[in-house]
Amino acid sequence: MELILTLQCKDQPGIVNAVTSAILKCNGNITENQQFTDPQSQIFVMRTRFETDETETTCHQILARDLTRFDSALTLRGADRKKKALVLVTKEDHCLRELLYLHDLGELPIEIPAVMSNHDDLRAVAEGHEIRFDSFPDLGKSEQEILISAAIEKYEIDFVILARYMQILSQEFCESMAGNIINIHHSFLPGFKGAKPYHQAHARGVKIIGATAHFVTGDLDEGPIIEQDVAPVNHSKGPDALVAIGRDIERRVLAKAVQLFAEDRIFLVGNRTIIFS
Amino acid sequence: MELILTLQCKDQPGIVNAVTSAILKCNGNITENQQFTDPQSQIFVMRTRFETDETETTCHQILARDLTRFDSALTLRGADRKKKALVLVTKEDHCLRELLYLHDLGELPIEIPAVMSNHDDLRAVAEGHEIRFDSFPDLGKSEQEILISAAIEKYEIDFVILARYMQILSQEFCESMAGNIINIHHSFLPGFKGAKPYHQAHARGVKIIGATAHFVTGDLDEGPIIEQDVAPVNHSKGPDALVAIGRDIERRVLAKAVQLFAEDRIFLVGNRTIIFS
Amino acid sequence: MELILTLQCKDQPGIVNAVTSAILKCNGNITENQQFTDPQSQIFVMRTRFETDETETTCHQILARDLTRFDSALTLRGADRKKKALVLVTKEDHCLRELLYLHDLGELPIEIPAVMSNHDDLRAVAEGHEIRFDSFPDLGKSEQEILISAAIEKYEIDFVILARYMQILSQEFCESMAGNIINIHHSFLPGFKGAKPYHQAHARGVKIIGATAHFVTGDLDEGPIIEQDVAPVNHSKGPDALVAIGRDIERRVLAKAVQLFAEDRIFLVGNRTIIFS
Amino acid sequence: MELILTLQCKDQPGIVNAVTSAILKCNGNITENQQFTDPQSQIFVMRTRFETDETETTCHQILARDLTRFDSALTLRGADRKKKALVLVTKEDHCLRELLYLHDLGELPIEIPAVMSNHDDLRAVAEGHEIRFDSFPDLGKSEQEILISAAIEKYEIDFVILARYMQILSQEFCESMAGNIINIHHSFLPGFKGAKPYHQAHARGVKIIGATAHFVTGDLDEGPIIEQDVAPVNHSKGPDALVAIGRDIERRVLAKAVQLFAEDRIFLVGNRTIIFS
Repeated sequence: MELILTLQCKDQPGIVNAVTSAILKCNGNITENQQFTDPQSQIFVMRTRFETDETETTCHQILARDLTRFDSALTLRGADRKKKALVLVTKEDHCLRELLYLHDLGELPIEIPAVMSNHDDLRAVAEGHEIRFDSFPDLGKSEQEILISAAIEKYEIDFVILARYMQILSQEFCESMAGNIINIHHSFLPGFKGAKPYHQAHARGVKIIGATAHFVTGDLDEGPIIEQDVAPVNHSKGPDALVAIGRDIERRVLAKAVQLFAEDRIFLVGNRTIIFS
Repeated sequence: MELILTLQCKDQPGIVNAVTSAILKCNGNITENQQFTDPQSQIFVMRTRFETDETETTCHQILARDLTRFDSALTLRGADRKKKALVLVTKEDHCLRELLYLHDLGELPIEIPAVMSNHDDLRAVAEGHEIRFDSFPDLGKSEQEILISAAIEKYEIDFVILARYMQILSQEFCESMAGNIINIHHSFLPGFKGAKPYHQAHARGVKIIGATAHFVTGDLDEGPIIEQDVAPVNHSKGPDALVAIGRDIERRVLAKAVQLFAEDRIFLVGNRTIIFS
Repeated sequence: MELILTLQCKDQPGIVNAVTSAILKCNGNITENQQFTDPQSQIFVMRTRFETDETETTCHQILARDLTRFDSALTLRGADRKKKALVLVTKEDHCLRELLYLHDLGELPIEIPAVMSNHDDLRAVAEGHEIRFDSFPDLGKSEQEILISAAIEKYEIDFVILARYMQILSQEFCESMAGNIINIHHSFLPGFKGAKPYHQAHARGVKIIGATAHFVTGDLDEGPIIEQDVAPVNHSKGPDALVAIGRDIERRVLAKAVQLFAEDRIFLVGNRTIIFS
Repeated sequence: MELILTLQCKDQPGIVNAVTSAILKCNGNITENQQFTDPQSQIFVMRTRFETDETETTCHQILARDLTRFDSALTLRGADRKKKALVLVTKEDHCLRELLYLHDLGELPIEIPAVMSNHDDLRAVAEGHEIRFDSFPDLGKSEQEILISAAIEKYEIDFVILARYMQILSQEFCESMAGNIINIHHSFLPGFKGAKPYHQAHARGVKIIGATAHFVTGDLDEGPIIEQDVAPVNHSKGPDALVAIGRDIERRVLAKAVQLFAEDRIFLVGNRTIIFS
């Protein structure tokens, strides 16, 4: 059996030694290990994968007891226990299709108990992949969030993927799922504020466009960045072509971010992520 | 002898035919040709390289006469007549070194009659490459521009390269050299306004940083974009490391933009560039 | 109505002038034009898109007549008349899924009358997208090619896409469709010959893997290159992970090559392609 | 004081625990740590940077004693003690210039006691950067290697950089410096054997060219890969342009590989590298 341990705490002497000692007590053999101390915040983060014949419960008891003095955020998870994602969508299908495609291929180690939407447009896409689809086209925002929260509870959802979900979530909802909501957003060098960003980008003749996957905080497009990628463009691409290229980058970047999250590779330190890729 | 023709005008039927007919009258053989009609502005641009035994003067007369009805901006230049660049620098040397290095290698088809600076720090770099270096550390901004303008006249400068020149040029100066001043600037996804951008980028944990070469308009960092490039970064890079990576991108992007300009490959249409790379 | 003209011939004076004169006679207005003379072979290629109120037949007559003296390969096609592709697959689905996904999105301007396969595995994928699927699992190679050739005739196929088709086509078949069969193949720096290339690449610790889309000649993996792309990898990726990353590159590169072909942007000059992207 | 520890051995339980325990005995505080177990070879590698008030000698004694049972290859080095590189060149200057440029900037943490060459061409480049230049244009290969070996001893050289050194080193020399000679080589997808590779690449119309930095084994271009990068090209680039682009990639890739080596980030496992970047 393989377990994935993550740990985050104030940096202090002896942490790694204590972790590895505790894993030895679990009869564990470390197969992967990454750690990093952030020089700015002096926060220490660590991700360790180890094999053991002990149960997850036993290991958790040993680790929690031996590491208690470090006052750390500790997680332990069986490597084959997949995280459960709730995917929220509106009308655009490119991100949803990419997630379902990679999920079908077995390259995205998550479970998707349901797709939910404030529109009915993507029902056929979800159901074509045999994923449950719930829509709430006629509800107000707060009623929508009640349904979403109920689904999170019912399906024991670990994280929410905003796969081009065009509703702004309430501050309360964001806080209740803090660090567990992933959004995808177009990005440009330089950035463009306001409406029709691809038209603005075109008007300045940008040569590179991109996309950013990030955690959602109150401010929809300003949370900690998880993953980014770009593509070169040129003058022959009108605003519509830029939008199409943007779609292509968005779906790849979102899928990559989901994969990192699914494998416990992302740590949040203040407004930054530390990623063991 | 090879000539490079550029032409820009309102799109209208018969332009290409008129140009190619005129080149035939010059006994010219087209070796390279690119043209583009911008769908937004209906501006037509064209770059044609052709061989001929006629003189540049003869060809210019034929072309100007035959194309007069299109009310076009027309340029004609011997392919081996290098454009003359005035390079302005302050204290950072990475862009200047890159330009001089590529110039020495013969990969940057420009002449550099002089490097000018508001500081004396980079004298050795320029003179080590046997390029004249003039500094004006003690002068006020308007006096500096008088010297720069005098040098532009004296050396018959075609364009100005701001190779990390940390002075803001006056509106008047920018307008007098409109479309002929190239600047280099760091860029991020998303953009960051204000001081210490690399620190801001670090604080959000950006995963990609970049640089933008652009023409200078009144607003120093907002002119039409010529060239952009990016590099991936991660959490292990502190602000200083980001600055170092940024320097590396800046020098490559600036050199590329200068090369495009030197070869008459850039057309300005409104606030956008059309680039035949 | 918009027409796309392509032309390829020995370089000689007056071609562009003759083309643009002929387009004027068609009352055509050029909206896009690219041309290139290959210095090695002295072959001239040109792609021109123009609007006209004349019929395609009328335009073709005018162009064919006026350009006959250049002894050129000339094509003319309505921009909205989609090319018809026959997709051949075996068992791997990643390339087929990508093509069908982009086709559904409207981003791949082709028609796909049928998918054919030497296995039955991908029937559900094709039919799920409402594309006809014909398989021939029990036939010998020459009988397979008879069926494929019959389908090419029946559906008026313009080109064949080998979307991970693991059969070697006969020399005769390749020649009968020369320049109209596109294949996708993994690629490495440096290249690796023989079986299990991803394992070989892993054994040398390669840091970049890629894929190449190319035209098929007799030699399956050696035809003229259309499109290539790469992705960075590192030591943490075992052979299986390399294979997964390779799949991701392959599907993107193949889709890009198909798009270039669908838009008449590829010219074959000897064993090289000239691509107006 | 900061120390960098590297360790490589057969994977076995308790290594990390033993290392971190020993570092605690050194009153060390770990600031950076990376480790990896290669699943194929079951080789464990680790790089740890730690602060301590103890001397390097004391720390080395503690670590060597406590880790002796793991039969590991152990190195310990003060983080500010720069490795000494001997740079070998022939006539091409692009790689040498890049190394000296980054060295001047302080971005390449190495010392360069000397540049040596079988030609005299690059004397001015080296001496312009105040680096000693020794040439041996008239000597046979074995006499050259005697001089090189003498310089390695005299200057206490840690590693050799072949910055476009066009001589094949003897098997004996390569073995005497095994794992400590870095070479740079052009690379293509697919690979091309034999003379004039850029011409071959051009003849197949490759769309991406690259470079590979690798350790030198007996076979000059086949050692373990350290770093690779690529650049897109198109049909408009003739063989000479490809060579120029290749030069640009080569200098960046070589500099990156040297930097990784200088910071003890490269581990050799069989014919592969594990790199903690």
